[in-house]
Amino acid sequence: MSINTFTPTPADKFTFGLWTLGNTGRDPFGEPTRSPLTPAQIVDAIGQAGGAFGVNFHDNDLIPLDASDQASAQIKSDFRKALRRNKLKIPMATTNLFSDPVFKDGAFTSNDADIRAYAIQKTMRAMQLGAEFGAKIYVMWGGREGTESDATKDPILAVKRYRKAINFLCKYNLDQNFGFKFALEAKANEPRGHIYFAVTGSYLGFIETLDHPKMVGVNPEFAHENMVGLNFVHHVAQAIEHKKLFHIDLNDQVMCRYDQDFRFASNSYKQAFFLVKLLTDTQYRGFKHFDSHAYRQSDHQDVIEFAKGSMRSYKILEYKTDQFNKDKQIQKLVKLINRDNRKLTSLTNKFTKKNAAQLLATNFNRHKLAERRLPYEELDQLTFDLLMGVR
Amino acid sequence: MSINTFTPTPADKFTFGLWTLGNTGRDPFGEPTRSPLTPAQIVDAIGQAGGAFGVNFHDNDLIPLDASDQASAQIKSDFRKALRRNKLKIPMATTNLFSDPVFKDGAFTSNDADIRAYAIQKTMRAMQLGAEFGAKIYVMWGGREGTESDATKDPILAVKRYRKAINFLCKYNLDQNFGFKFALEAKANEPRGHIYFAVTGSYLGFIETLDHPKMVGVNPEFAHENMVGLNFVHHVAQAIEHKKLFHIDLNDQVMCRYDQDFRFASNSYKQAFFLVKLLTDTQYRGFKHFDSHAYRQSDHQDVIEFAKGSMRSYKILEYKTDQFNKDKQIQKLVKLINRDNRKLTSLTNKFTKKNAAQLLATNFNRHKLAERRLPYEELDQLTFDLLMGVR
Amino acid sequence: MSINTFTPTPADKFTFGLWTLGNTGRDPFGEPTRSPLTPAQIVDAIGQAGGAFGVNFHDNDLIPLDASDQASAQIKSDFRKALRRNKLKIPMATTNLFSDPVFKDGAFTSNDADIRAYAIQKTMRAMQLGAEFGAKIYVMWGGREGTESDATKDPILAVKRYRKAINFLCKYNLDQNFGFKFALEAKANEPRGHIYFAVTGSYLGFIETLDHPKMVGVNPEFAHENMVGLNFVHHVAQAIEHKKLFHIDLNDQVMCRYDQDFRFASNSYKQAFFLVKLLTDTQYRGFKHFDSHAYRQSDHQDVIEFAKGSMRSYKILEYKTDQFNKDKQIQKLVKLINRDNRKLTSLTNKFTKKNAAQLLATNFNRHKLAERRLPYEELDQLTFDLLMGVR
Amino acid sequence: MSINTFTPTPADKFTFGLWTLGNTGRDPFGEPTRSPLTPAQIVDAIGQAGGAFGVNFHDNDLIPLDASDQASAQIKSDFRKALRRNKLKIPMATTNLFSDPVFKDGAFTSNDADIRAYAIQKTMRAMQLGAEFGAKIYVMWGGREGTESDATKDPILAVKRYRKAINFLCKYNLDQNFGFKFALEAKANEPRGHIYFAVTGSYLGFIETLDHPKMVGVNPEFAHENMVGLNFVHHVAQAIEHKKLFHIDLNDQVMCRYDQDFRFASNSYKQAFFLVKLLTDTQYRGFKHFDSHAYRQSDHQDVIEFAKGSMRSYKILEYKTDQFNKDKQIQKLVKLINRDNRKLTSLTNKFTKKNAAQLLATNFNRHKLAERRLPYEELDQLTFDLLMGVR
Repeated sequence: MSINTFTPTPADKFTFGLWTLGNTGRDPFGEPTRSPLTPAQIVDAIGQAGGAFGVNFHDNDLIPLDASDQASAQIKSDFRKALRRNKLKIPMATTNLFSDPVFKDGAFTSNDADIRAYAIQKTMRAMQLGAEFGAKIYVMWGGREGTESDATKDPILAVKRYRKAINFLCKYNLDQNFGFKFALEAKANEPRGHIYFAVTGSYLGFIETLDHPKMVGVNPEFAHENMVGLNFVHHVAQAIEHKKLFHIDLNDQVMCRYDQDFRFASNSYKQAFFLVKLLTDTQYRGFKHFDSHAYRQSDHQDVIEFAKGSMRSYKILEYKTDQFNKDKQIQKLVKLINRDNRKLTSLTNKFTKKNAAQLLATNFNRHKLAERRLPYEELDQLTFDLLMGVR
Repeated sequence: MSINTFTPTPADKFTFGLWTLGNTGRDPFGEPTRSPLTPAQIVDAIGQAGGAFGVNFHDNDLIPLDASDQASAQIKSDFRKALRRNKLKIPMATTNLFSDPVFKDGAFTSNDADIRAYAIQKTMRAMQLGAEFGAKIYVMWGGREGTESDATKDPILAVKRYRKAINFLCKYNLDQNFGFKFALEAKANEPRGHIYFAVTGSYLGFIETLDHPKMVGVNPEFAHENMVGLNFVHHVAQAIEHKKLFHIDLNDQVMCRYDQDFRFASNSYKQAFFLVKLLTDTQYRGFKHFDSHAYRQSDHQDVIEFAKGSMRSYKILEYKTDQFNKDKQIQKLVKLINRDNRKLTSLTNKFTKKNAAQLLATNFNRHKLAERRLPYEELDQLTFDLLMGVR
Repeated sequence: MSINTFTPTPADKFTFGLWTLGNTGRDPFGEPTRSPLTPAQIVDAIGQAGGAFGVNFHDNDLIPLDASDQASAQIKSDFRKALRRNKLKIPMATTNLFSDPVFKDGAFTSNDADIRAYAIQKTMRAMQLGAEFGAKIYVMWGGREGTESDATKDPILAVKRYRKAINFLCKYNLDQNFGFKFALEAKANEPRGHIYFAVTGSYLGFIETLDHPKMVGVNPEFAHENMVGLNFVHHVAQAIEHKKLFHIDLNDQVMCRYDQDFRFASNSYKQAFFLVKLLTDTQYRGFKHFDSHAYRQSDHQDVIEFAKGSMRSYKILEYKTDQFNKDKQIQKLVKLINRDNRKLTSLTNKFTKKNAAQLLATNFNRHKLAERRLPYEELDQLTFDLLMGVR
Repeated sequence: MSINTFTPTPADKFTFGLWTLGNTGRDPFGEPTRSPLTPAQIVDAIGQAGGAFGVNFHDNDLIPLDASDQASAQIKSDFRKALRRNKLKIPMATTNLFSDPVFKDGAFTSNDADIRAYAIQKTMRAMQLGAEFGAKIYVMWGGREGTESDATKDPILAVKRYRKAINFLCKYNLDQNFGFKFALEAKANEPRGHIYFAVTGSYLGFIETLDHPKMVGVNPEFAHENMVGLNFVHHVAQAIEHKKLFHIDLNDQVMCRYDQDFRFASNSYKQAFFLVKLLTDTQYRGFKHFDSHAYRQSDHQDVIEFAKGSMRSYKILEYKTDQFNKDKQIQKLVKLINRDNRKLTSLTNKFTKKNAAQLLATNFNRHKLAERRLPYEELDQLTFDLLMGVR
């Protein structure tokens, strides 16, 4: 890998959502700054950026609510052509269960049984649409599944209602042979005051209570964990270790703020590096989806720069990972700080009465152990130097 | 329940840790403001506050590291006498795997195999000590299981190492017939820069990957979830729904700050109310442990006030729960906003091809559904009035 | 003051903005849930809630950008009539320098001199409009005066540009005899990644560098300081002490999250109490503006409940303040903890060589001083009891 | 400036505190991991790191409370020798008003007049000590000047008490011809629940209310502003623009967490770069004090690496600043986005009736202005590339 190879290719499995390059710059305090694009135009823009694998969508990113059959058919046809001419695939689909006023108090956890049923129906149809375009990952983000005041919804019921919906949809997936893997996406707040299943970990526990736990994993998002000040790398690592990392959303965010969806690696350089390192070291083979949008100041041309930069930064950090793993001084320190002890490890690896007795009888000199060197400042400074390109 | 019955009794199952009333007021920027108490003196203080069920301890709260056998025996004897004269039990025990320098880079996840083994040994001994005093809940808080820089520890290995330790200790528990239930306690940061298994949800997922998942649950702590700005009530609710709430730590905290361990309900009145309401409504029967300490300005007499206030506030909020559940206007609104629909519910409750087809064929008028009343401001204002005692 | 007197009157000087009761429930992830109201209709709604003093507006809340002269005249006429029939005044006006795309990179601090000039022109016109309706307070909120990346704007220039704009407008105010007092409003982020003059304190320093510092004060907002986890009461207190509290925005917010603008006292009960206590104890005579909106689930009827509740909660907390100030046990503790020493105070109040020498020669027993009682747990628990209505 | 010139020299004006390299690794949950060093030993360690200008201290870092005259004299003598042999100066001194229990409720704002007087006396003596060693900057950090519950202290009185103390000490400074500049240091919380003058901006306003405002400036600390999620660069820029940046504390911190005092630039690479760029571009000539400490895992040798790394990272970022300012593509974009307009600027620079009239009469096409290019994604991506060393 040379310093000049930061050009992405489909083998990198980078993807963008229709809503990302198509974002018009509207925010709670301001009107759009960019004109809306059709789905086909967005696909062309992704094509223009170059090197992406595919495009993801919410049902209503592609087909507006209340579109006629004829209008839908035309949109789909234009979209397919755009995909073909840009050599882009549809790896993931999802449902918009948050924009329409009907979902103002949630979808699967709404207090209203009609709305819960409507949300399931809408998801079934969106799954059909995703399947029609060949998607194999189905993301679920419960954007309105929460409360502003806990006077308004029973938090136990909310969990039960959510489970029922997911169980139903898993069986529908099987019944229809869609072959979807579901990836649940957590976010702690915004647009609701508090959202259930606030962090990736919340879903890891929940999944095990489902009827089809193997069909369901998680879709962690950098900004969502960062919004509550958590170390994203640790959460992704746990998901990987549990074999539940089905998809990942890459973007960036200053901690403990509104959902910013900034360009990947635009703010949190060090954390982005350790994330890329984790995904590289564990040979993650799934899609890397940039769930972000250009600054509101950007015009169409700068939106293309945003897309290019997202992929380029990932590649740069991949290159840095390679450097880190080959750096002799760094690796010497990594080796120094990881001390094995075969005998003790064999005792603790497997519980037997005998192992337990031997472990209890072992004499540890904790003062000596505490004195073993852990030159973490040195190692961390080398990391800084390496990332700054001055090693 | 009358407004005057805020006096706690052992039936309330309130507990305190030796380290809570025994806290001396040392902090990172200051020296102790209160003189240290012996374990027996702390038990007397809890007795003086009146109405608690029991006392919890870390191994070294009771027996200092390096205490001689004789000294240990004397401490235990004094402690037992104090428990008897104050009619207090030991419901929970835990291990101190964070104070000694040997654990400066973690215990079960340390990069050093000797230290990992020593941490397991120390926990086995602490389990013996807890069992000796009749504890049936064993809490695990991995206070140093983390990093400051992710250059220094492999986050995948950390999960695997933690699992091995817990699996070993579960089997030791079975082997020795201790009868412990383990309760894992999460905290996202402090004293380490980032701690693994950052939130209660992280453990809910992890538990299902253990050899003995039924033996293991969680010990959520109000301040720990609040430190990262999360809605504690939702996290406890999920744990309850998954039948994993084995223990709970009550205290208080301003969000997104250092670990304050303030008196329960001293800051977050509304959240504390909804927590007590949740525990009451779901008939939680476990211990309610006040993992907090008096302000650093408090003297011994004020520490007693702190302990009394902790229990009193809980009882006040229990009384408010009863009022809330009986308030006709509130309950009318609660009923209004929870709308069932038998037919639709029966369709979505169980997936069959026929149910799916019927659901897909159902015609929803989403505009009408969106217009159904949800008078959440009114309901939330009534909650305020009720909590302020002006209804 | 009796427990039943929570009905507001114009003497309470409560105000609402056109954008508050007129909020349609649009957010970054969802469409409006309430139909838009005309300014006159909003005035009627405020009238319906009952007891408010007045209504505030941004220029474009009243007169849309690009409205014809004729349309403007009609809107104003309808608005005046509505004000008269509801007996409401216009105490405050402000400029919208954030919604239109032209301000996407700021107004007074924009990198583009044309836009900076346009923003000043727009403010001059909005001041004319405010003056026309009798407003005497002019609020400045620099909603877009910031950056996402500090590569894009010079932070020193930003301060200088902002100062020039304010100085110019102060002189325009004098020139036109509008008689406005300017109140600067801080917010640290959202809708920009970072906003200059992030907190109320930032403006307190800035004001002293202006040409007309006496004409300019601050407009602190509960949610804005809470968004960055600060103690709002302390910031308002400093503004009061510096005689710079010209206006105040009341609402509520969970800490360290997106800008929620929830109903005053809906979340932070204790903080809201100490704020009302501060305003009451210091005899604040300015307007108390509810800069908030109803939950997105609320319909028009519930919006009225929201407005009523905002005022009612303030009155309830005023009543609690009165109780607190008269509570004998509480006041006994307050007296105990505030210890004067005439001799020492006279030494430190005024520097003279002699006083300094005497102070240096004074023998303090710091151990004895440290032992003086500060029963803060007891006092804080009494506060809880009082607020819960169980004293 | 070449890539190899990252070696610091005294001309860089880097300083360390006795408490920084002398930190023993104690934290709220753990015991020291490093043995304590004498002041002279710490000076030797700073000398060993190489290239620093000087050493700063709190009174009790050098002379313990209750030290005898003889012991003090010995400490001072050893300290002086160490300074000489390491060619280090004492540029700054400060007072410890937070460790001793007497200050548990504050020093200058304590509710107890005796303690307030004692705090002033202690500061006078610490000023004598600082002056004796030639310090010219005197830092004031009010570490305990706050509350846990606002029931316990009057926030208006707190401001008044603080002002009295500072005014007294300013006059003492004049009287004794110490020649100190005072630098006030803000922190929002920890070790108290809430600390007055929470952010740098709070002091900028406060200073203008003092008797000797020119003698007093600020000492912003990277970690302190970051703890409450603020953009440190903006706050420092305002201080510089107001000519109030008298001193600066460099370290690092993950946002919205406990006070971490990590090595400068160890976490927030991008923010650290823009800070160094700001200080470089504005030709800041004051001291750059590393108020941080090594990780608790570090031994003495790694503490030296920590000190070296602190200075090295600053130098690397200085080099990056130089690159940024010379990069043609970056500077082309910077020029593009900063658009002047002589005519409009001359109108708005100075208020005259005529200028105001002309400005009001100017016709702005806001749609056209909104369309002017602001390629902020491109510029920000170039910043990333430059910092990563791949341009």
